[in-house]
Amino acid sequence: MSDSEDVLAANEAFYRAFGAGDFDAMTAVWTAGQDATCIHPGWPPVRGREKVMDTWRHILVEPPRPPICPLEAGAFVYGDSAVVVCYEAIGHIYLSASNVFVREAGGWRLVHHQSGQSEKVPKSVIEQSGKTIH
Amino acid sequence: MSDSEDVLAANEAFYRAFGAGDFDAMTAVWTAGQDATCIHPGWPPVRGREKVMDTWRHILVEPPRPPICPLEAGAFVYGDSAVVVCYEAIGHIYLSASNVFVREAGGWRLVHHQSGQSEKVPKSVIEQSGKTIH
Repeated sequence: MSDSEDVLAANEAFYRAFGAGDFDAMTAVWTAGQDATCIHPGWPPVRGREKVMDTWRHILVEPPRPPICPLEAGAFVYGDSAVVVCYEAIGHIYLSASNVFVREAGGWRLVHHQSGQSEKVPKSVIEQSGKTIH
Repeated sequence: MSDSEDVLAANEAFYRAFGAGDFDAMTAVWTAGQDATCIHPGWPPVRGREKVMDTWRHILVEPPRPPICPLEAGAFVYGDSAVVVCYEAIGHIYLSASNVFVREAGGWRLVHHQSGQSEKVPKSVIEQSGKTIH
């Protein structure tokens, strides 16, 4: 597989862990030992791997959690790092997201995630939003 | 200067170009020839350097443009790439932003920017927001 395909597979693993509420899978998706940052919708920046994983620990157990579906993900590779941009469909809400990956011994791992509400969503994205990656 | 300091200087140059409405300076801050992506607040992801610069061309001429001030910027370096997270104070509005830089011949250049409204802003950030980088 090309780097882009590998990065997109890592991106799907992130949303699969998110959708399943699986904290162990979410931990495996993020960097094993490097710094990490995260900006959840409406949140301040969270800095440091441990603090980022703490936010996921809380988010993943929160009921009710509607399915989350990444749409139109595009990977942009810069040597040993990569940026993925995509939509996130959560029920009838659409967000625009950035996911930054770095190449580690275990593969492409997430070091940064930001997502925020998207007010303008193309019809093509809304039409796809019934589809999930599961 | 360390990589972190260089990256933070590049981040300040981005906000200086933004605040000044200076399209040439904004062009110099972004990657010289690689792919770029951008998610403006509430927008869908914009993909491709030319399309990203087109959005800035329109944004930078839009009056009235209040001053924009980056606050509590933190740089996280991963070899030849780096993630900066910060607040953006625009008048009385606060946003949380991600800026991704890569090391190019000309220095650290922006390849991705996302910013979205921040609902929870620490008092320390509000107290600083009178200060600008100018």
